Amino acid sequence: MATGMLLVCGLALFLTIKSNLLHSQQFTISFQRPSDCSVEQFYDISSQSCVKCGPNQSTSATGLSCECVTGFRVLATNGASITCQQCPLEKPAVTEDGYGCILCPGSLTEQGTCQCPSGSILVERDVQGNPLEEARCEVCNGAEPALSAPNSYGDRYQTQPSLPVQSAWFSTNLYSSAAACLVYTNLTACQALGNMCVMNMHSFSSVANDACGLYNTIFRATAALGSTQDISYWRANLPWLYYGDQPGLANRVLQTEPLPTGFSFKGRNRNTDINLVAAVYNTRGDFLQWEKVGGNNLQALSLSRQHVLWCFLMVTVVLRSHLAPILLRMSDLLRVYAEPLFYDVFVDLSRGEDRRLLPLPTRNLNQEYNRKFINQGNLNDWYLSRRVLLVDTLSGREKSLGSLPKVIRIASSIRIGFQLVPGTQKGQVFPPLLSVTYSDVLITAPNTQTVSVSFAVYYEMDQTEAHMKTDIALGVLGGVSVLYSLVKTASWKRRIGSPLIDIETVLKFLLFYAGDLANVFFFITVGTGLYWLIFYKAQHFVSVLLPLPGLQEERFIAYVGCAFALKTVQFLHKLIQQLSVDIFFIDWERPRGKANKTIQGTPSPVSIWRTYFVANEWNEIQTIRKISPTFQIMAVLFLLEVVGFSSLALRDPWSDLQRPPQSYAPPYSLTLRYGLAATLWLCIGLLQIIFFTAFHERFVEDKICQFVDLCSISNESLCGQRGLLPNTDTQTFQISITSRLRLQYDRILEPLSRRNGPSRLVDAASGHPFDQSTKAYHTMNRFLGSVIDHAHRDMEYVVRDKLFFERVIGMEFLEPMDKSIFYNDESHSFSDVLFYGNEATLLIFDTLFFCVVDLGAQSFILAGVLTYVQQMIFRLIRNGIGRRNLANKTLVDQRFLI
Amino acid sequence: MATGMLLVCGLALFLTIKSNLLHSQQFTISFQRPSDCSVEQFYDISSQSCVKCGPNQSTSATGLSCECVTGFRVLATNGASITCQQCPLEKPAVTEDGYGCILCPGSLTEQGTCQCPSGSILVERDVQGNPLEEARCEVCNGAEPALSAPNSYGDRYQTQPSLPVQSAWFSTNLYSSAAACLVYTNLTACQALGNMCVMNMHSFSSVANDACGLYNTIFRATAALGSTQDISYWRANLPWLYYGDQPGLANRVLQTEPLPTGFSFKGRNRNTDINLVAAVYNTRGDFLQWEKVGGNNLQALSLSRQHVLWCFLMVTVVLRSHLAPILLRMSDLLRVYAEPLFYDVFVDLSRGEDRRLLPLPTRNLNQEYNRKFINQGNLNDWYLSRRVLLVDTLSGREKSLGSLPKVIRIASSIRIGFQLVPGTQKGQVFPPLLSVTYSDVLITAPNTQTVSVSFAVYYEMDQTEAHMKTDIALGVLGGVSVLYSLVKTASWKRRIGSPLIDIETVLKFLLFYAGDLANVFFFITVGTGLYWLIFYKAQHFVSVLLPLPGLQEERFIAYVGCAFALKTVQFLHKLIQQLSVDIFFIDWERPRGKANKTIQGTPSPVSIWRTYFVANEWNEIQTIRKISPTFQIMAVLFLLEVVGFSSLALRDPWSDLQRPPQSYAPPYSLTLRYGLAATLWLCIGLLQIIFFTAFHERFVEDKICQFVDLCSISNESLCGQRGLLPNTDTQTFQISITSRLRLQYDRILEPLSRRNGPSRLVDAASGHPFDQSTKAYHTMNRFLGSVIDHAHRDMEYVVRDKLFFERVIGMEFLEPMDKSIFYNDESHSFSDVLFYGNEATLLIFDTLFFCVVDLGAQSFILAGVLTYVQQMIFRLIRNGIGRRNLANKTLVDQRFLI
Repeated sequence: MATGMLLVCGLALFLTIKSNLLHSQQFTISFQRPSDCSVEQFYDISSQSCVKCGPNQSTSATGLSCECVTGFRVLATNGASITCQQCPLEKPAVTEDGYGCILCPGSLTEQGTCQCPSGSILVERDVQGNPLEEARCEVCNGAEPALSAPNSYGDRYQTQPSLPVQSAWFSTNLYSSAAACLVYTNLTACQALGNMCVMNMHSFSSVANDACGLYNTIFRATAALGSTQDISYWRANLPWLYYGDQPGLANRVLQTEPLPTGFSFKGRNRNTDINLVAAVYNTRGDFLQWEKVGGNNLQALSLSRQHVLWCFLMVTVVLRSHLAPILLRMSDLLRVYAEPLFYDVFVDLSRGEDRRLLPLPTRNLNQEYNRKFINQGNLNDWYLSRRVLLVDTLSGREKSLGSLPKVIRIASSIRIGFQLVPGTQKGQVFPPLLSVTYSDVLITAPNTQTVSVSFAVYYEMDQTEAHMKTDIALGVLGGVSVLYSLVKTASWKRRIGSPLIDIETVLKFLLFYAGDLANVFFFITVGTGLYWLIFYKAQHFVSVLLPLPGLQEERFIAYVGCAFALKTVQFLHKLIQQLSVDIFFIDWERPRGKANKTIQGTPSPVSIWRTYFVANEWNEIQTIRKISPTFQIMAVLFLLEVVGFSSLALRDPWSDLQRPPQSYAPPYSLTLRYGLAATLWLCIGLLQIIFFTAFHERFVEDKICQFVDLCSISNESLCGQRGLLPNTDTQTFQISITSRLRLQYDRILEPLSRRNGPSRLVDAASGHPFDQSTKAYHTMNRFLGSVIDHAHRDMEYVVRDKLFFERVIGMEFLEPMDKSIFYNDESHSFSDVLFYGNEATLLIFDTLFFCVVDLGAQSFILAGVLTYVQQMIFRLIRNGIGRRNLANKTLVDQRFLI
Repeated sequence: MATGMLLVCGLALFLTIKSNLLHSQQFTISFQRPSDCSVEQFYDISSQSCVKCGPNQSTSATGLSCECVTGFRVLATNGASITCQQCPLEKPAVTEDGYGCILCPGSLTEQGTCQCPSGSILVERDVQGNPLEEARCEVCNGAEPALSAPNSYGDRYQTQPSLPVQSAWFSTNLYSSAAACLVYTNLTACQALGNMCVMNMHSFSSVANDACGLYNTIFRATAALGSTQDISYWRANLPWLYYGDQPGLANRVLQTEPLPTGFSFKGRNRNTDINLVAAVYNTRGDFLQWEKVGGNNLQALSLSRQHVLWCFLMVTVVLRSHLAPILLRMSDLLRVYAEPLFYDVFVDLSRGEDRRLLPLPTRNLNQEYNRKFINQGNLNDWYLSRRVLLVDTLSGREKSLGSLPKVIRIASSIRIGFQLVPGTQKGQVFPPLLSVTYSDVLITAPNTQTVSVSFAVYYEMDQTEAHMKTDIALGVLGGVSVLYSLVKTASWKRRIGSPLIDIETVLKFLLFYAGDLANVFFFITVGTGLYWLIFYKAQHFVSVLLPLPGLQEERFIAYVGCAFALKTVQFLHKLIQQLSVDIFFIDWERPRGKANKTIQGTPSPVSIWRTYFVANEWNEIQTIRKISPTFQIMAVLFLLEVVGFSSLALRDPWSDLQRPPQSYAPPYSLTLRYGLAATLWLCIGLLQIIFFTAFHERFVEDKICQFVDLCSISNESLCGQRGLLPNTDTQTFQISITSRLRLQYDRILEPLSRRNGPSRLVDAASGHPFDQSTKAYHTMNRFLGSVIDHAHRDMEYVVRDKLFFERVIGMEFLEPMDKSIFYNDESHSFSDVLFYGNEATLLIFDTLFFCVVDLGAQSFILAGVLTYVQQMIFRLIRNGIGRRNLANKTLVDQRFLI
C-alpha cells in the first residue's frame, strides 16, 4: 500500500495534496532495533531496518552484518551483503579472516577454524603474509617469568546491606598486586592494592585475604624503607592510606594548627576559595594527573555545576537537610564512572613560588576497625584516613569485568568541614576535615534507577562565649527591671491610696514586671540579631560564624518567644485598662437662660450638644496612633521584599540586596531574619514617629492638640486665657485628689455604677422620666464644675508644676492631704488612656508579632498580612468596647459616638 | 629541619605538643607535579615527588619512570628504579623491549634499535619466542588490495568566522570514504561520508571536494538502487541527509498532517511526553545504538538535568531570552565529546505493538545553498535536512587526530518547535521541527574558556482568531458605550438646564466616554486574561496555547494601558467634581428663645453646634468606602504570595499552587498575571462589598445611615416621623428644582462665591463684626428652610418616587416647570459626592493601578505597596481639599472639621 502511494506521488503531485493522511504516512518508518531482528536477519545501519541474510549465512555477533555458516568462506562482499562458498574437502577449515579455506594440522573448532593445542599458536600465513596451504601450530616458549598469574581465588566482597558479591576484580588482582608490590616493589601494583583497600572502605576484616590487611602487612614489612615526604604514616613506595591509630590523634591533627591563610570576604584580599587539589589514580594504580577539585571530579558528581561551585567558594553554613540531595541516574553513573578513580585530596597552600600542600584528613564513616564503625563515634576514637573514591562500579562486577555490576558503591555524602579558630580576627580556620559516607546500591533497573548524593561545605564556630554574654546581659537587665517594676507598683499603690500589700498588688507587680521583662528580652534578642547581621555580613575577615540551625538557634527562638508572650500580657493589660477607664466630661460653662432648671427640667441644649461633640471626638481619637501602622507594614514589606533586604538574612556572608535569579539560594538564618525584621520595623517606626512629631503634627494635623483645642473652643471665652490660673495657657492637668474629694466623687458615682444598659439621656429629652443615673450625671457635672470654680472651701486645690525627678520616675512626692494638687501637664499625658500614648508598647508588640509569625512561617508577607489583621482586630475591639465604655461613663448616647 | 623534627617526634611526644607550629608543618608536603621534574628526574607516583634517575638513564616519555639512554639495556628493575648496562660491541643494538642486546642486519635508529627498510618488518625472536642472535628484516607481500590508501590530500575546512582550518580528519578520510562507499558500497564508509557532510553543515560548496557534494554525487549515481523505507529522499545504502529541495516542501512536511497522538495535561490520559529516539553513529560511520533523546545525548549538553527534563516534559512556551543559556567549560567538552556523535532523531509514535517512528525534520540554520543561508529566510525556501551533531571536536584538529583542535563546532542553540493544529480540541500538533544553530569556537584557553548553549522546546498557536474576537468585542462594546455616554451627557445637560451644545458639553461627553470606554477595555482585558487562565490552566487536552511574549502580548498590554489611562481620567474627573461640590447644611429647626434675632444678633448656639456636629461627621465620611482598601491589598497579597496563587501565572499548564522550591520555574506570562491579579482583586472586592452590605452595615456599623440618623436625631422631633410628607420615613431626596428657585439660590450665593479665605463665623462670635458672607449664609439657611416649610407660594414642590425607567437610565423625564420635584431617594444617592458612592470606579481604578504596576515591575508586592501609597495620597487629597471646600461652602470653621 505504502509503496503504491509512493509511485502515485512520483507521478502526480495533486494526488498527494488530496490525500494528506497517506502523504504523511509516507514519512513514518517502522521502528526496528538490532535486538528486533531474528537470527536470519541483520540490522542494516543505513536503512535502520532488519534485512534477511543470504543463503548459508547467519547473523554475526554484533547483529550488524551476516557471516557465513560453519564450513563456508566469504567469496565476495558488496556493502553489507556477502556471498558464501563452501570450502572444498581438501581444505575443510575456514581461515580466521573468513575469506580463505585451509587444511588443518589437527582438529577443527566449532566455528570451523583450525584448532591448536594450548601453549601453541595457529599460523595460517608466512611471515610475508602469503597464505599457507596447510596451517601450522607453533609451540610458545614459556621460559620467561610472568608477573601476573591470577588464579580464581575468591575474595568475598562485603557490601553495606551485606550483599555478598563475588568480585571479579578482587579475585583477579588482589594477590597478584600484593605479590608484585611486596616482591618486585611494583609501584603501580602497590597503588592498585591501596585502591582495593579503599574500595573495602579502609576496613580490616578478620579474613586473612582482605586488601587492607595485605596493605598493612606490607606496610609493616617494609618499615625498613622508611617514610616518604617526612610523614611517618606514609611509607616509601606505598600509597598513604591511614593516619596513625593512636587515641586522640584525630583531635591533634584537626585542631592544633590553623591554616596559614585566613578567609576574608571582601576587599582586595578577598579570599574565600579553598583550593583543593587531588592526585588521581585509576584502579590499576596508574597515576593519571593532578586535578583541581571542583573541576571535574568531586564536582562532576553533581550535574548542577553552579550549585557545587557555590559550595566550594563560599564560607557559610550549609545545613545538610537544607541542601537538597542531587539525584543521579544509575545509567549515567555507569557510563561516566565506568572506571573508578581514586583521589588523594590536598589543600593547596601555595603562595607564589612556595608551593606546598596540606593533606586533607579524611573521615570515612563506613570504616570498620575491630568490627566497629569507629569513625561514627567520639572524635578521640576516630581513625583518620586518606584517599577517597567517588563511585565504584568495578568491584561489584561478579563474573567478568565486562559484566554489569551487581552493586555499585557511591560516596553518597561528602562534607568538608571547617572549624573557626576561637577568637580569630583574621578568619583563621583549622585544617578542614573531609567526611565521606558511602552507600551500596543494588542495581535493579539501571535505566530508571536513581541514586541520591549530597555535598556540603560547612563552617562552624564555638558559640559558648556568645551564649554566656547573652546570659550576663539578661541577668543584669532582668534585675534592673525588677527594681523598675517595684517603683511602678509603689507609685500605683500611692495613687490608689492603699498601703496594703495584697493579691492585687502582687498581680499588678507581675503585670508591670511582665512588661519590663518583655522589653529586656526584646532588646537582647534584637541586639543579638543585629550583632550577627552586622558582624557576619560586614566582616572582611571571617571572625564570626552564624549559630547553626537547630540546637544553637533554639535558645534564641526561646528568648523571642518569651519576649512576645510577656509583651502580649502587657499589651492586654493596657488594653483592658483602657477599655474600663473612668472618664467624665464636665461641661464647665454656666448655662444661660433657664440654666438653673437643669437639674429638674430639660438639660440645656448648649451643654448637651457640646458634650456630644467632645465625646464624639474622644471616641474618634481612641485608636489614633503616633505612626500609621499600615504604612509601617507596607514600608517594611517594601524594603524586605521589593528592595530585597531579605537577602541579608541568607546564610551567606555577602550583603548584596539583589541576587541573580538563577544563582543558588542558601537557606535563611532565623537569627538574621529576626534581627533584620525587628531592626527594620523599629527603624521605620522611629522614622515615622520623628516625621509625625516633627513635621506632620506641627504643620498638618495633630489630633490630640485638635481635641484639646476643641475643648478650649467649646469653652467659649469665659477666661481670657485657656488656663485655670490667671495668665496661663495650660489647660490639661494631672490631678492628685484628696480622699475627701474622692469619697464625694464615689458617692455621686454610686448610682452610675449600678446602672446597666445604654444611656437614656436623649430618650429622656423625648419625654421619658429622668432616671437616677441622669440625675447623678448632672449632680456630678455640677459638683466637679463647682470644685474647679473653687466653690467648695473644703475641697480646695492648688496648681503646680511637677518636679523633674517626679517626672523621671513617674511618682509624685507630695501627698494630697488638705488640698488636691493639679499638676500642669503640657505633654498631654491623658493620651496614656488612648493608643496614642502607648506607642512604644504597641510598636514593640507589633514588631514581636511580625517577627514571631515570620519565624514560624518564614514568610514576611504572611507576617505582614497577619500583623495587619491583628492590628485591625485590636483596633475594632478597642473602638467597639471603648465606645460602649465611653457611652456608659459619660452618659452620651452611642448614636452620637460615630 | 623537617627531618630533624620527625626524629624528635618519634622520640618525645611532649615536644610535639610544645611546638605546634612545627608539628603541623610536618604534615605539609611540597607540591610537585610531573611537569615540575627536570630531565634527569622521574615522577614517583608513590611519594608524589620528583626523584633523580640513576646513572645512564633519562626520563621516559611519560615522565613517570626512567629509561636507559641509547645503547644501554635494562639489567634489573626494582620498583621504579632500574639498572642499565651498556650493550657489548658485538651486539650494539638494544632490542625493542629494552631488556636485551642484539646484532642488526642494517643500521641503527636514533633510539639505538635496529632499523629495517620500509615495506619490511623487524624480527627479533623466532616463532617460539626465543631471542635471535641477529635480528632479521622480512619483506611484506603487498599483493592484497587495500581499501584505505589515504594520501595527504587537503580539504579546506571552512568555519563560520571564516577560520581556515586544515582538517586532519577530512584530509585523511574524505576521498577514501567516498570511494569505499561508491565502489564497494561499504555501509560504514557511506555513513562516514554523510557525517562529514553534516560536519560541513549540510552545505554544498563550489569546491569540487566537499563532502556534501560527494554525497550528492553518490546519491545521484546510485539512483538505480532505489529508496529505502519507502521514503524517496532516503537512498538505499546511504544515510538520509536531505529532504527534497522543491519550493514549499518544508511547509508541506511541517503543516499538513498532525501527529496521531495529541497532548493532554491531566487525568488518566496525561500525555505531555514527546518521545524522541535517535539512531546514533560515530564519526567513522559505525552504528552505535538507539537512544532515547532526553537521556544522555541532547540532554547531556546541559549540566542541569532538571532544567532540560522540564523542557522536554512540558507543554509550554519557553522564551529563548528567558531560558538562561547554559555555560559549558571547554575542557569538559573536549573530555566528554572527544569523538563527535551523530544523531538521526525521530519521534516515537509507538503504541503497544505498533512501533512507528516519524523522522524529525531538521532546520540547520547554518546550511548554505548557492552561498546563501537558505534556512534563515522564508519557510517556503527552507531546505530541510536530517542528522545532527552536538559537538564537533574532530574536524578542527589540524595536524593530527591526536592534537588539540584549533576550533570546535557546537550546536549552540537547539530548539524543538511544535505548532498546534488550529481549532484542535484534542491537543493535536503538527510534526515538530528541530532547529539547530551551530557556532564555531576558536580554542584559546581550554581550561578557562566557556561556551554558551541554549536549549528550548516551544509550542505555538495561531493567535489571529483570538485577536479577531477581541476586536469584535471591542467594536461592539465601544459602540454601546458611545450611546451610553451620550445619554449621560444629555441627562447632565437637562439637569443644568442648558440646551446649548458647546465646548463644555463636548468635554463632558468625552469625560463620560473615557469612563465608559475604560470599562470596556477593562472587562475585555480581564475577560481575555481569565479566558487564558481558565482554558490554559484547566485544559486536559491541549487546545489553546498562551500568546508568546513580545509581539503577541504587546496588543494586550496596550489594551490594559488604555483602560488604565482612561480610568485615571474618569477618576480624576470624579475627584475634581467631589472636591468642588456645592454643599449647604440647612438647620431646619425653628430656634427657641431669641431665635428671631439670629439674623442680626449672635447666632443661636443650638443651630451652630448642631451644624458643627453634622459638618464634622460629613467631613469624616468623605473618604469612607464600601470596602476596606487596605484589607483588599492585604488579602490579594496573601492569596497571591502566601497561598501561592501567583504560581498560576507561570507559563506552564499546571495549576498547583505550591511548587517544590528546587524545581525549575518557568517564566511568568504577563497575560496570566494580569488575568489572575485582576480577577482576584475583583473577586475579593466583590466579597468585601457583599460582606459589608449584607452583614457589617446591617449588624455592626453603617456610616452613611449613621449620618442620616444623626441628621434626624438632630432634628429633635419636630415631626412624628422623619419624612417631609406625613406618615413617611424617607428623609433623603434628590431634588430637581425650578429655574426660579435656582436663580434665587444663586443670588443669595453670590456673596459667598466672592468670598475667599477661611470662615469667620466663630471669630465673629468672639466680637468681630459680621461680614457679608455670614449674612448670606443665614439668609440662605432661612430661605431654604422656608422653602421646605412651603412658605413660598411661587417655589412650591412636590414629593414623588422615581419611575423605574428613570432609575435605570439615570435621567428624569419630568422637567421642573412650575414646581420643584423632590424625588424620594432611599438609596442615599447623596453618597455619589463621597468616595462611598463611587466604589465601582475606585475599585476598577485600584485594580488597574495594581495590575499596571505589576505588569511593569512583575512584583505583586511592589504593586500592593504602591497601590496603598496611591490610595493614601488620594485619600489625603480628598480629605484635605474636601475639608477646605466644606469649610468654604458650609461656613463651618475648619477647626470643627476634625
